[in-house]
Amino acid sequence: MAVPVALIQGASRGLGLAFCKHILKSRTSAAVIATCRSPDGAADLRVLAGQHAGRLTVLKLDVDREEDVREAAARVKESFGRLDLIVNSSAMLHPSGKGETSLRDVSAQGIISTLKTNTVGPLVMAKYFSPILQKGGGGFGQQPAEKSKQHSGVIVNITAKVGSIGDNGLGGWYSYRMSKAALNMATRNLSIELGRSRPKVVCVSLHPGTVNTDLSRQYHKNVPKDKLFDAEQSVSYLMSIIDTLNIEKTGKAYSWDGTELPW
Amino acid sequence: MAVPVALIQGASRGLGLAFCKHILKSRTSAAVIATCRSPDGAADLRVLAGQHAGRLTVLKLDVDREEDVREAAARVKESFGRLDLIVNSSAMLHPSGKGETSLRDVSAQGIISTLKTNTVGPLVMAKYFSPILQKGGGGFGQQPAEKSKQHSGVIVNITAKVGSIGDNGLGGWYSYRMSKAALNMATRNLSIELGRSRPKVVCVSLHPGTVNTDLSRQYHKNVPKDKLFDAEQSVSYLMSIIDTLNIEKTGKAYSWDGTELPW
Repeated sequence: MAVPVALIQGASRGLGLAFCKHILKSRTSAAVIATCRSPDGAADLRVLAGQHAGRLTVLKLDVDREEDVREAAARVKESFGRLDLIVNSSAMLHPSGKGETSLRDVSAQGIISTLKTNTVGPLVMAKYFSPILQKGGGGFGQQPAEKSKQHSGVIVNITAKVGSIGDNGLGGWYSYRMSKAALNMATRNLSIELGRSRPKVVCVSLHPGTVNTDLSRQYHKNVPKDKLFDAEQSVSYLMSIIDTLNIEKTGKAYSWDGTELPW
Repeated sequence: MAVPVALIQGASRGLGLAFCKHILKSRTSAAVIATCRSPDGAADLRVLAGQHAGRLTVLKLDVDREEDVREAAARVKESFGRLDLIVNSSAMLHPSGKGETSLRDVSAQGIISTLKTNTVGPLVMAKYFSPILQKGGGGFGQQPAEKSKQHSGVIVNITAKVGSIGDNGLGGWYSYRMSKAALNMATRNLSIELGRSRPKVVCVSLHPGTVNTDLSRQYHKNVPKDKLFDAEQSVSYLMSIIDTLNIEKTGKAYSWDGTELPW
């Protein structure tokens, strides 16, 4: 079997960085492509590349720039020829760093910037990388015996429970919530289009739990300790889910504990 | 009781124009404010204004421009002092006029433009107009006897069944579907924030059915005749729903026949 190749988008820190570490450590046969906006500033990725010589490739990719995504896809196609997993990890709460607590804080520019990174970015990633995932060897997830139901690749969009419309009882965080609801629709749409194709690509949204990263650290004062994960913990939960994915499970949103989230 | 005031955003044609006509005809005490990007080009609105002298005010408002929305709200506040109903009607399928049939058709620019008009616009409308709706007289919807449950105003966001993630079995139309899913989250969030306030503002998403307007006319060849509405028919269904709205029904998405849509 071919070496599985995973691409982690938004890999310089937080969940993305933890995904790279986890896969390099737990899947010793796998190659990892780590993308981020500024490879020169990504010290942690450089250290990691040194520890796993030849297995980690760092690529410049700003998900807000369609040209960047197109060029990165061309390079991955040329160098690897295939992909088995993409994790779309980069996200912002709001350009100000603070989620809107009320309508007063809402601005067109703020929500558009949030939508670009959290929603449009992952969809444009799917546009350019899904042909490469269709050449994957199905190295992530669980392959059923029946050949026609096997998948070649997996797309994971990192969503958030607060992006569930049905679960929304508190309000606030307009930009972030709306960006993740729209991302969930993208996941659903992608699962349909890429579930019809041969070979098939599985696409899901995953909620990482409340994670101690820069995105929302300032809001964690009242989160009970056993519900506040560090990035490594969260990623180990999410990788357990990824390991069980197959085409029957595509097009849904799952929480870190494997339960399905309402839309 | 004060004269009810309704503001219809995106009123130069299609559903928006039909809302203006319907309210002017069926609610002879009501004043209507019709907003559109180019009042000079809105011939139908000019005719309507002539037929209902003094009752129809046409205002320039491009929902993509936050400054426009802010200025229009200032003018409405000055001239009317209150609002009882806002209908956010303007929408596009995609800047090209065609919904994406596959990922190949997706572009960052296309989806961002669609999100600006269909999603960000209605939210920015709510930001500037909700204080004026809080001064409304509750002239639309059904007021319960209990004073603390009465509402001063109603926000209607025109959504679409294809914006339901749970109902999505066909895929395609990425930009439009994602814009309406995010709009539904905005509706939900608004219903929470404005449902807490005193006075309360009701906020719902309404699906107009398949309507014979410019937005999607090219896709109607295979729609059975009894499921293809003209704008007047659709608006008469939607106004029947609006007439029954109260704070208990806020924060949901309803179809033209009154059934609740899944998120």
